[in-house]
Parts: sequence; C-alpha cells; structure tokens
Amino acid sequence: MQGKVYLIGAGPGAADLITVRGARILAQAEVVLYDALVTDEMLALCPQAIKISVGKRCGQPSTKQEDINQQLIDYAQQYALVVRLKGGDPMLFGRADEELCALESQGIAYEIIPGITVALAAAAASKQPLTKRGVSRSVAFFTSSTAPDTQSQNAVPLPNCDTLVQYMGGREAISTAQKLLSQGHAPDTAVLVVENCSLPNQRITRLQLESLAHGLPKNDGPVLVMMGQALERRSFN
Amino acid sequence: MQGKVYLIGAGPGAADLITVRGARILAQAEVVLYDALVTDEMLALCPQAIKISVGKRCGQPSTKQEDINQQLIDYAQQYALVVRLKGGDPMLFGRADEELCALESQGIAYEIIPGITVALAAAAASKQPLTKRGVSRSVAFFTSSTAPDTQSQNAVPLPNCDTLVQYMGGREAISTAQKLLSQGHAPDTAVLVVENCSLPNQRITRLQLESLAHGLPKNDGPVLVMMGQALERRSFN
Repeated sequence: MQGKVYLIGAGPGAADLITVRGARILAQAEVVLYDALVTDEMLALCPQAIKISVGKRCGQPSTKQEDINQQLIDYAQQYALVVRLKGGDPMLFGRADEELCALESQGIAYEIIPGITVALAAAAASKQPLTKRGVSRSVAFFTSSTAPDTQSQNAVPLPNCDTLVQYMGGREAISTAQKLLSQGHAPDTAVLVVENCSLPNQRITRLQLESLAHGLPKNDGPVLVMMGQALERRSFN
Repeated sequence: MQGKVYLIGAGPGAADLITVRGARILAQAEVVLYDALVTDEMLALCPQAIKISVGKRCGQPSTKQEDINQQLIDYAQQYALVVRLKGGDPMLFGRADEELCALESQGIAYEIIPGITVALAAAAASKQPLTKRGVSRSVAFFTSSTAPDTQSQNAVPLPNCDTLVQYMGGREAISTAQKLLSQGHAPDTAVLVVENCSLPNQRITRLQLESLAHGLPKNDGPVLVMMGQALERRSFN
C-alpha cells in the first residue's frame, strides 16, 4: 500500500479562502495532518478524515519537523489519500522542502496545491495594494527568524524592495524599522501590522516607521508587518 | 441604485485555483469585467453574468485603465453585484489602486478577495519551495516593466533577496541575469521559466543563470522567471 500525499495551502485562516481544488481534495482525504494555524472551521471541511495536529497549540510543545516527516511517510504507507494542510502557502516559509525530501526518499507520490499567503490576504483586508504604478513595483516577503543552522541574521542585509512584508514578525520588526530609518527611509513611511488575518479577531493597525521603531502595537501572537510608501492610505479614503 | 464591486483574484489560470469565496461570489455576480488572463473555464463559473472583456486578447488593443475604471463605476450604478475579475492576485501588479480610487471617488462600496499569485502556483507546479531553511528566507516579486510615468529602470537596483521572481518577464529577465552575474552571483544559480502556469499548456523550463543571460527559452508570451539557490532540484529527485 502506497498512498499519495497532497501538501495543501490552507490560506490565511478563513475557511473559504482555501482554493476550490484544495477544498475538494480535503473533502476526500483519509488523513489530515494540520498546522496550528489551521482553524476548526477549516477542519470542518474534512469531517470524514482522521485529523492529526502537528503544530504548536495552547502552549503544548510543537511536533518536531523530523517527526512530521516520519508521520507523513507512515500514514502514506497506510492510507491512499493523505493531506498535509499548512497555513498560508506551502512553498513560502512552510518548510515544505524537508517534507518533500522525506516523501521522495521513500518514493511516495505527492502533489502541491498552492494557498493564499497571508500577505495577499492582508493587502485585501487593508485595501492597500502591495504594488502601485509609479511608487512600488517590487515586494519582498521575508522573515528574520533564524533556525539554529542558519547564519547570523546580523550578516543579512534588509531587502531593498519598494514594499517589505515581514512574516512572523514581532520584536524583529522593531529592529527592521530601526535599520530602515538608519538607512534614510522616511520616518512617516506607512506601516500596517496585521494580526489574525481573515479571522473574526483580525486586527489591522496603521502606524508609521518611526513609531514602529519604538515598539509594536500590543499583540497576542506573531504578526505580519507590511512597510512601504505604496501602503499609504489613498488620499480621499 | 448603487451596487457593490468585488475585486476578485482569479488565480493563475486553472478554474479550481480560485478561492472558495471567490467562486461563490462569481456565481452570484450580475456583471463580470475580466482580464485577458482569465480563462473560459473560469468564466464558466458565472454563466448567469454579463461578461465584459477588458483585457488584451487575440491581438486586439487592450481597454485603457481609465475606461476600465469608468466601466466599473457605470456598472455599479446599474447592478447590485459587480465583479472585477483579475488574473493572479488583485493587489500584486494588478493596478488595483487606480480602480479602488475610482470607486472611492463615487462612494461605491467594494471588497477585495485575494487570489493565488502565479509565483505560488509556479512553485507548487515545479515542486520547488521559494524559501528553504538555511538557504533562502526572503523572496522578491518584481517587474521591470516601466509605465511611462515611472522612473528609468536603469536607476533601480535589482532586489537583493535570496529568491527572485520576475513577473511579466521576457527580454527583461535576460538583463536581470546579466546584472546578477556581474554582481557575482554563481553562473549555475538555478532558474525556472514558467509559461501558462496551471493551464493544460503549462511549460516549465529549468536552466541556469548563465544560460538565461544568453537568452530565454522559446516562449509564446510573458513568462514568470524564478531565480535562486533554493530552486535547485533536491539531490535525489
């Protein structure tokens, strides 16, 4: 018995922001291994499936990546249709490479279904395009989180794109703002801090680069921080 | 009569890569103004709607942006539910700002539904994550196309992110490769050229930075060009 594994992007959180294809496969899955970012509302799309949480939730320790890889292999050897449901898009900050390598090492077939990455949902929710004619034609999605085996983050320059989106930001975004100011970026550069994007408790806070350099708005968890001139509120809004 | 306008991201092309929310609203739309990138298969999701093409197709001239803005206003003043269906995600290289400004100038209500931007679909189709632990933790989405009112592209430095994705690339991607080589990037840096992503005629070509600097693979239209070490084929694949 050798099943197939679908890595599916769940999108930012709201259950109807998954793709039609993703929802259809989810409804057929026998086993679903899901991240902490995946909501109960989303899991209601696969009532038939065995659901396995492999993310950090309620202060419990998260499952180690190696264990997730092994579970994917084990379930694919027992079930025909296994879904690995990941928050956002699987190919962006999702450690997909490690899971795909594990599957390939066992010759297990897989397919990837993209998902709405939170930056796009945050742009939609805040009504602020990430690019704008004559203002921004490049966007960087980045994270400052460092895994133990990556080089020191101090050695890495900030992205030089017109619009910057820092994923899994927190205190790191404060440091980003300080660096941008020291590089001569305008203190009134627009900043949006987005928490729980697309969920009922979504919170979007507008501030400026200078205030971000002094601290983040109060938040309960990781936030998405978007910075750039293209994010300035349109004048008559 | 004042209707509501939904800017909906159609995603990369395949009809089932739109979001569940986008598909649901499309099925209720009275009028749909759609881009050239939107496929007939996607338009089949709204058989009830009046469908207006506002994109370049079959060599016909494209509708001017100002005319699209005006049509959105006109239809919203005649119909309750108007959809502006845009290829990819509306907030990324979609000139959404101009359309939103036009709607706001008339006090017309609108909502934005995000879509899968082609870079994410291309990563899924090519099975190459855009980020990779220890290798890439930043991705730039950019275009070199210059509207008449933007500054000379020569003045703009290339993004310095770990993974680069050039949208609407063509000959500009050749110039990007040349610049990257002159900046000391490795000649064997992985490159993927993606055409008609997610459609039956999808074509993905793998090459290296050095060969891209000498020319693009034969293609029939705009391509997405992805570059970076994270895109190297996993060793045992």
